[in-house]
Amino acid sequence: MKGILFVVSGPSGVGKGTVLEEVFRQDKKLKFSVSATTREPRPGEVDGVNYFFVSPEKFDSMIDNGEFLEWAHVHDSRYGTPRGFVEKTLNEGFDCVLDIDVQGALNVMKNWEGGVYIFMAPPAFEDLEKRLRNRHTEDEGRIKERIETARWELTKVKEYDYTVVNDVVEKAAEKVRAIIEAERSRTGRVDLRFD
Amino acid sequence: MKGILFVVSGPSGVGKGTVLEEVFRQDKKLKFSVSATTREPRPGEVDGVNYFFVSPEKFDSMIDNGEFLEWAHVHDSRYGTPRGFVEKTLNEGFDCVLDIDVQGALNVMKNWEGGVYIFMAPPAFEDLEKRLRNRHTEDEGRIKERIETARWELTKVKEYDYTVVNDVVEKAAEKVRAIIEAERSRTGRVDLRFD
Repeated sequence: MKGILFVVSGPSGVGKGTVLEEVFRQDKKLKFSVSATTREPRPGEVDGVNYFFVSPEKFDSMIDNGEFLEWAHVHDSRYGTPRGFVEKTLNEGFDCVLDIDVQGALNVMKNWEGGVYIFMAPPAFEDLEKRLRNRHTEDEGRIKERIETARWELTKVKEYDYTVVNDVVEKAAEKVRAIIEAERSRTGRVDLRFD
Repeated sequence: MKGILFVVSGPSGVGKGTVLEEVFRQDKKLKFSVSATTREPRPGEVDGVNYFFVSPEKFDSMIDNGEFLEWAHVHDSRYGTPRGFVEKTLNEGFDCVLDIDVQGALNVMKNWEGGVYIFMAPPAFEDLEKRLRNRHTEDEGRIKERIETARWELTKVKEYDYTVVNDVVEKAAEKVRAIIEAERSRTGRVDLRFD
């Protein structure tokens, strides 16, 4: 049976990555979607494992050919989710997880039939602001920009099937795991042989 | 926020009761729906805890007043799910579980807005037959009748949101728990305060 596409997104600073690491540690049947990017590989990064590293020209042609479920500019590079990789993973029977921003998730909703959409939310808006500021890696202007984006992103929660509040990482991971398990138990996905 | 109604059903002999015992042991926020019955209390049974014990006349009037989400004849007695008890439990914010047969669940689907429907299935039809025969408490005619009923019940699985195969009790209980947790994480049920 084909796998299920899970799209996990939420505002920057909400801690999606940490929660998903915990989920992947506990669920060995999940595959992570490998993104394509135009940026240079960092030391240790492997093409096809961490990212598909492609030239800007190749990225352009992938856009033109409709090969992305979604793509976006981040700083000076572009990142995209290749439809082909997701389809292959699902066809092999693995469930596949996308970790993308809210704008990207809304695009996947438009470009993909089915899929389970999980919104990760902070316990309160102030927590998000605090987390963004505590990174100490960005100037005030950039932080304000992220906070404004987060405010817009939080208005999109109603488009998602599920909402998980990331108060404690382990609890949030448990909830994501429950959602994944429950979706695997959807009638029609469970193979019954009674004839 | 109002609680969620979970309806768990499946063929006789599938082991619903044992799985649900495990689920209730682990989830203290769940309430079990108390049924009304016309049969006499057995020693130790408490009115309003194990059952609501009512006279046949009272049961008749409850039917006439539309007070049952579903009811059925079982042997010489009648059993029913009182709508009032379920509504009160949900209004108090507790999630409520009904353990009823397939015919009953189909009636609840007609009489109740919302609700999450979980079908519990045997790993194979032969398992069900074996379990029914191993009870040694019923004559061959009654067993055959139950097997025929089970065959019909299994055709109704497609009406349910979820299907859980009861191969190992602990695993089946884990799946039911995941479904309950996931439904609690549905967008709209999760309280976000961002304004």
